[in-house]
Amino acid sequence: MSIMEKQIKQGTVGVVGLGSMGLGSALALVDAGFDVVGFDVNAAAVEKLQAGGGRTVASPSAVAREANIVLVVVVNSDQVDQVVFGESGLAETLAPGGLIIQCTTVAPSYVRQLDEKLAERELGLLDAPISGGSVKARQGELSVMGSGSKACFAQADEVLKTVAAKVYELGDKAGIGSSMKLVNQSLAGVHIAAAAEAMALGIHMGLDPDTVYEVITHSAGNSWMFENRVPHILNGDYTPHSAVDIFVKDLGIVHSTGRELTLPLPIASTALQQFTAASAAGHGREDDSAVIKVYEHLSGLKLPTASKD
Amino acid sequence: MSIMEKQIKQGTVGVVGLGSMGLGSALALVDAGFDVVGFDVNAAAVEKLQAGGGRTVASPSAVAREANIVLVVVVNSDQVDQVVFGESGLAETLAPGGLIIQCTTVAPSYVRQLDEKLAERELGLLDAPISGGSVKARQGELSVMGSGSKACFAQADEVLKTVAAKVYELGDKAGIGSSMKLVNQSLAGVHIAAAAEAMALGIHMGLDPDTVYEVITHSAGNSWMFENRVPHILNGDYTPHSAVDIFVKDLGIVHSTGRELTLPLPIASTALQQFTAASAAGHGREDDSAVIKVYEHLSGLKLPTASKD
Repeated sequence: MSIMEKQIKQGTVGVVGLGSMGLGSALALVDAGFDVVGFDVNAAAVEKLQAGGGRTVASPSAVAREANIVLVVVVNSDQVDQVVFGESGLAETLAPGGLIIQCTTVAPSYVRQLDEKLAERELGLLDAPISGGSVKARQGELSVMGSGSKACFAQADEVLKTVAAKVYELGDKAGIGSSMKLVNQSLAGVHIAAAAEAMALGIHMGLDPDTVYEVITHSAGNSWMFENRVPHILNGDYTPHSAVDIFVKDLGIVHSTGRELTLPLPIASTALQQFTAASAAGHGREDDSAVIKVYEHLSGLKLPTASKD
Repeated sequence: MSIMEKQIKQGTVGVVGLGSMGLGSALALVDAGFDVVGFDVNAAAVEKLQAGGGRTVASPSAVAREANIVLVVVVNSDQVDQVVFGESGLAETLAPGGLIIQCTTVAPSYVRQLDEKLAERELGLLDAPISGGSVKARQGELSVMGSGSKACFAQADEVLKTVAAKVYELGDKAGIGSSMKLVNQSLAGVHIAAAAEAMALGIHMGLDPDTVYEVITHSAGNSWMFENRVPHILNGDYTPHSAVDIFVKDLGIVHSTGRELTLPLPIASTALQQFTAASAAGHGREDDSAVIKVYEHLSGLKLPTASKD
């Protein structure tokens, strides 16, 4: 079977939530020849999908009327609940045998409940949080930390292969994918806050920030996030690639999951406080590296500015 | 000038402190043709240097009687003070123009005072903390985060080239090298504690520990320390490469430096508490990855054991 035949057989795919990740994935699906039908409350996002060759409709239920596989890429579990079970939600029209690929970062306990409620309606769920950022979404090169039945994975196969460079099949039950994503977000959030704190310490001690970056990225103190985010600090450019408030949310899920499990998570909880402080100081919509501004506000530390060149 | 002539010209080099890092560097210097004269209070360490072709003497002052360049590789600033200014210390016999290469992780404020006191005696100081671990020390492939006068760097050149693969010359004043090392230790300590916490969370949520390692090391949550230390946890092997108590000490220096500067460092301070808790529970001399046992003690979490295979 040629790739073209597979694409024709795959038919229509729905995408609910056209933020940077959802839109990128939707356009990657269009590029691969899928018939993409999307929905978002944001008119600008809707126009971008249309401009890229996708179709858009007026509600999640209208999406599910046309597509039997729907990616849900929204902000949090409240929004997932709204687009699935709310008025004009997916559950109103998605035919039995239909599949929801849930890509939002949510609590494992939430996604297990979601799976039970969908199963009652003979609807399938892939617990499939994504990572990689908007650029990789657009290129169809996300990572998917997925779990669900083999049948659901088979049903989603062509879609997942199109949006992701790497699909981890982590188990046959909802919640496993979200658990793995939570471990990743816990580390990612802590590493960004730790990078900010270490840069604040270095600058306060009088070190040259660019030299700190050069030395640390070649030393045992390096992390993926240090290497990726500290350049934003060095350039004084807090244009959001991923915003402070995303980690207020995601480390909030880590924190509350720790409480559910009665497992103390002091490091992640402290990092959460730093992102919360950054949001409190008005930086919630800036790049997550702006968590360093908490140290600036408190200590009068002089951070690099965009005009340094 | 050939390498051999340089080595002959370089003459004798002293090494005070023959722990895993000091011994490794001393043996690397022997291998490179230096006349190495060492001292340690530990008889077993002394024998290892002798077995490797070095000479040993009865005190730091006896070292400095023979060598005009001395590496100091001890545990903390109290020990540095002892071997330099204590009874039979280096300062008693090191001739004016002599150089101390101070490799111990200490507070920047301490090493600035040390530099002043040595300058009064016409002795040079390189603030030259090392990193890389015992294996790289033995191979002469450490990293040096150094600062000091150009004259001191020139005087130390052949020695530094022998013990290190990378020498960062960070500035002309004592304290800059130690500041950079502190930034690195802050990140390294936080990343180990964060790795332990994230693994504890993943295991408690029911994830397979080996799979967590596989996924995270290919995701944005990765760090140098996660990649390096988590295998110890997966193998249930807490043989110390670097011990929990090293980070009680080094994050303690980070914490007290933050207090000196009036800069709050909540993430590093929380990580310090976790290492302190691990030490309190009797794991101070185990590998630093044993910080995960704090979560085990508190929650009854089941960690991988050495017998799993």
